[in-house]
Amino acid sequence: MKVKKDANLKIIPLGGLEQIGMNITAIEYEDSIIVIDCGLSFPEDDMLGIDLVIPDVTYLLENADRVKGLVITHGHEDHIGAIPYVEKQINMPIYATKLTMGIIENKLQEHNLMNITKRKVVKYGQTINLGCFRIEFIRTNHSIVDAAALAIYTPRGILVHTGDFKVDFTPVYGDAIDLQRFGELGKKGVLALMADSTNAERPGYTMSEKTVGITFDHLFSDYRKNRLIIATFASNVDRVQQIINSAAKYGRKVIVEGRSMVNIIETAMELGYLEVPDNTLIQIDQMNNYTDDQIVLITTGSQGENMAALSRMAASIHNRVSIKPNDVVIFSSKPIPGNEKAVSKVINDLEQKGARVIFEDTHVSGHACQEELKLIYSLTRPQYAIPVHGEYRHLKRHAELAQDMGIPKENVKILNSGDVLELGENCFKVTGKVPSQGIFVDGLGVGDVGNIVLRDRQHLSENGLVIVVVTLEKYSNQILAGPDIVSRGFVYVREAETLIDDCRYVVEETLEKCFDKNITDWSKLKSAIRDALGDFLWKKMKRNPMVLPIITEV
Amino acid sequence: MKVKKDANLKIIPLGGLEQIGMNITAIEYEDSIIVIDCGLSFPEDDMLGIDLVIPDVTYLLENADRVKGLVITHGHEDHIGAIPYVEKQINMPIYATKLTMGIIENKLQEHNLMNITKRKVVKYGQTINLGCFRIEFIRTNHSIVDAAALAIYTPRGILVHTGDFKVDFTPVYGDAIDLQRFGELGKKGVLALMADSTNAERPGYTMSEKTVGITFDHLFSDYRKNRLIIATFASNVDRVQQIINSAAKYGRKVIVEGRSMVNIIETAMELGYLEVPDNTLIQIDQMNNYTDDQIVLITTGSQGENMAALSRMAASIHNRVSIKPNDVVIFSSKPIPGNEKAVSKVINDLEQKGARVIFEDTHVSGHACQEELKLIYSLTRPQYAIPVHGEYRHLKRHAELAQDMGIPKENVKILNSGDVLELGENCFKVTGKVPSQGIFVDGLGVGDVGNIVLRDRQHLSENGLVIVVVTLEKYSNQILAGPDIVSRGFVYVREAETLIDDCRYVVEETLEKCFDKNITDWSKLKSAIRDALGDFLWKKMKRNPMVLPIITEV
Repeated sequence: MKVKKDANLKIIPLGGLEQIGMNITAIEYEDSIIVIDCGLSFPEDDMLGIDLVIPDVTYLLENADRVKGLVITHGHEDHIGAIPYVEKQINMPIYATKLTMGIIENKLQEHNLMNITKRKVVKYGQTINLGCFRIEFIRTNHSIVDAAALAIYTPRGILVHTGDFKVDFTPVYGDAIDLQRFGELGKKGVLALMADSTNAERPGYTMSEKTVGITFDHLFSDYRKNRLIIATFASNVDRVQQIINSAAKYGRKVIVEGRSMVNIIETAMELGYLEVPDNTLIQIDQMNNYTDDQIVLITTGSQGENMAALSRMAASIHNRVSIKPNDVVIFSSKPIPGNEKAVSKVINDLEQKGARVIFEDTHVSGHACQEELKLIYSLTRPQYAIPVHGEYRHLKRHAELAQDMGIPKENVKILNSGDVLELGENCFKVTGKVPSQGIFVDGLGVGDVGNIVLRDRQHLSENGLVIVVVTLEKYSNQILAGPDIVSRGFVYVREAETLIDDCRYVVEETLEKCFDKNITDWSKLKSAIRDALGDFLWKKMKRNPMVLPIITEV
Repeated sequence: MKVKKDANLKIIPLGGLEQIGMNITAIEYEDSIIVIDCGLSFPEDDMLGIDLVIPDVTYLLENADRVKGLVITHGHEDHIGAIPYVEKQINMPIYATKLTMGIIENKLQEHNLMNITKRKVVKYGQTINLGCFRIEFIRTNHSIVDAAALAIYTPRGILVHTGDFKVDFTPVYGDAIDLQRFGELGKKGVLALMADSTNAERPGYTMSEKTVGITFDHLFSDYRKNRLIIATFASNVDRVQQIINSAAKYGRKVIVEGRSMVNIIETAMELGYLEVPDNTLIQIDQMNNYTDDQIVLITTGSQGENMAALSRMAASIHNRVSIKPNDVVIFSSKPIPGNEKAVSKVINDLEQKGARVIFEDTHVSGHACQEELKLIYSLTRPQYAIPVHGEYRHLKRHAELAQDMGIPKENVKILNSGDVLELGENCFKVTGKVPSQGIFVDGLGVGDVGNIVLRDRQHLSENGLVIVVVTLEKYSNQILAGPDIVSRGFVYVREAETLIDDCRYVVEETLEKCFDKNITDWSKLKSAIRDALGDFLWKKMKRNPMVLPIITEV
């Protein structure tokens, strides 16, 4: 491979550390840029009212002529969710394995982008050429089938990007991760390894997906008389396959509930990733034709999401399924950090309705633990390590693990979102920064809610609001109407009439003082009202509502 | 004991299941009522802006002449936090062990209640008489010292209330739980057992507090050169004692940081529950006189609480402690459900500053696991079981465990808040309901924020607000000023001028239509504006701000 001495390879995460879940990385060499993954992140607790956060692709737009394509590792939202939003801004051909592409196409269809977005399905072992890059898709295992690692052949050497992965020697669908190929690449020489850090804090190995199937068989056997309801991640096709296997073995019909679950299962069946014996799947409206012991329901809602099917069942607002005593509900999942309380609420609600809830040994992770990471390091023996996918604590633990595996400290780098990492002759450093703040999506609005709006929402949510309306006479500054006080989210007003009177009095007094001093500028009047009323309420009640003075003039 | 056949014993939780943490239970027999514990609960995620939730004691107020006293099991907030609020409404003498009383007195002092609240410190083994009840305090172990179980001798038989407890055969301070006494009571005959359910889902035994001390010793030995910062619960005096022990052993000075931590340590030292070698404790402003290896900081913030000391250190807004590379931060705690994400954020922030964060084997629970519960059941052999303290899932698992221990299903009852459980001759049933909804405290306001205010805060937090101000001429209904549109928390307005224009147009059109139809009633005009503008914004942006029309008249 001919190396031009003057050009460096650039690795630029456009999301990531500051926006967990927003996996999108640009790889650049001279006139070629490729993009790996295009995920979205879900709003943090302080992003009130925000639906989604998508990446800022300003850098790609500014270099659109050099962007050669979008390469996807697997079909999870945090790797593909922003594709429609980004494709609307910059039209890139998409490369992915078959199931991954199937899931992407569902999204493109929803956004009417099928006709304008070029797509190519890639098989494991196959390579594609994009500008100066050659990209090979390598089989891995993950909590969604058809996950791929990428070997990216660059003029500077081979980058290996694992995507999200685990080592499953006995996967449910297809073969185990192609460890041989990782070894071959290591022998050729790997410039840098970008590997999944999610479980870098966990010692040992992640268990095989098949162990969950064994638990399912035991539960189907233990609870032969009960209706079974199993909640899991919509995209975990292997998990669904194992439920179907147990159902077939124990003579139960399978009902799938929850829109995202139905969508993915349909796609997986169409593309041949799910094997469903004839007459196993039934529609939910056929449920009443069967007794409890003949049915297993697979449902969304394993994270306690408010509007998901299981949460609606637990809250008695599901229109087709009522939880009954003796139902057995299996959480085939683990709460994602932040969802613990919501999940617990659903569990409590279910148990209060008499259901038995089971969540032990019913889930395995889709991510590599420490020993699996070490395995990949010892197969690939990279010169540089760039931990990806995880919170800082995970990336840091991964960085330490890389050092334990013999990579010098100075050859390991944790990147922040927007960092431009340059790799070249004796060069491995961050040399610049590109825009990478997440962009908020609220309803149909993309980017029209920013920090000021969020700060206001926060203020309103904690303290409510007091509006002061005054009508002044033009020129004379006489008060023609008001001050009227309107509050929302502040205090139960019917019990607070004297409080409102007091507020009115404070405002009147403030205005008089201002007029006495010939202060008539509206912005000054407003700020005087805000200060006086704010002080008054803080002193009286130790509360701090948003005070919003509105002056009109007639 | 003479039993009047016609009177039943009543057990009435005034908080609990619906307000986790709000532990307060009335025990009633004829003209005697005693209250066990008086805790507060912290607001759920949907209680926006609420500071605390305290119990509704209407039932006690209505029966004030019969209320004989308040008996406290231990000094945690969820058992004593509401005392000042409740004592202001109903003056009850308080009975508690020494440290518990010390912590309660700190609260009473803050609220200027010391002079008007009778208090009696009770020793283990001692009994007090309150009305027809005799109450014995029994030594237990918990994550705060001086915790007590209660044996309540009633005309109907003996109630045993464990409080929060674990079995620690090698506690740090004092003796192990008085298992012999539980056995003696069992031999006498126990009517009902009310036991801690927190860990009822966990098999096995909770480890001894001393195991954490061993970990501390190892960590002090492993990180001799580093500054150590240990976060734990302010009230865990034993934990603090063990840190001080390790500090003394390894020659470090101890700094205590965080107001609640300082308060409790002072109280514990005064009362003799903490043994601190001379010259061990230093003030934080002396920190700079020592090198990193000579210092250990004990701090609040182990739950990632926003304003706690450790969180401020992590966010670089602590005015005395800056986190440095090579600091070692030990979380001697486990996130309480719901706090996982906040804790993780603090960990990430600390690691990003170069600190090493340790959270393995540095904490044990203060609550009994399944085998400990079974031990208490086999010692007391109660006729009835009433699981207390925990979410429904925990209470239910506890109820099943009680049945496994031979108590008939019909003799086990999970109570909801406000349930009146009657125990009598062949009677064990819920016969009534008393008020038990939590009361919101917001700033100085107690009970002035209710569901309507919360619903408004929720609406505002997710969608923001659009205010429409119109000034009409009296009688003529001519628009004199406006419609003016003011928004907050809705959309970044400078980018949305045309949107505001559109809104103004929608309102004008709506008003014209109303006037054409001779609709002049303000409430109808307002509702027309609200509907029209709400529809317009939903169709245009799929958003649903609070629309607040304000009409003034001149």
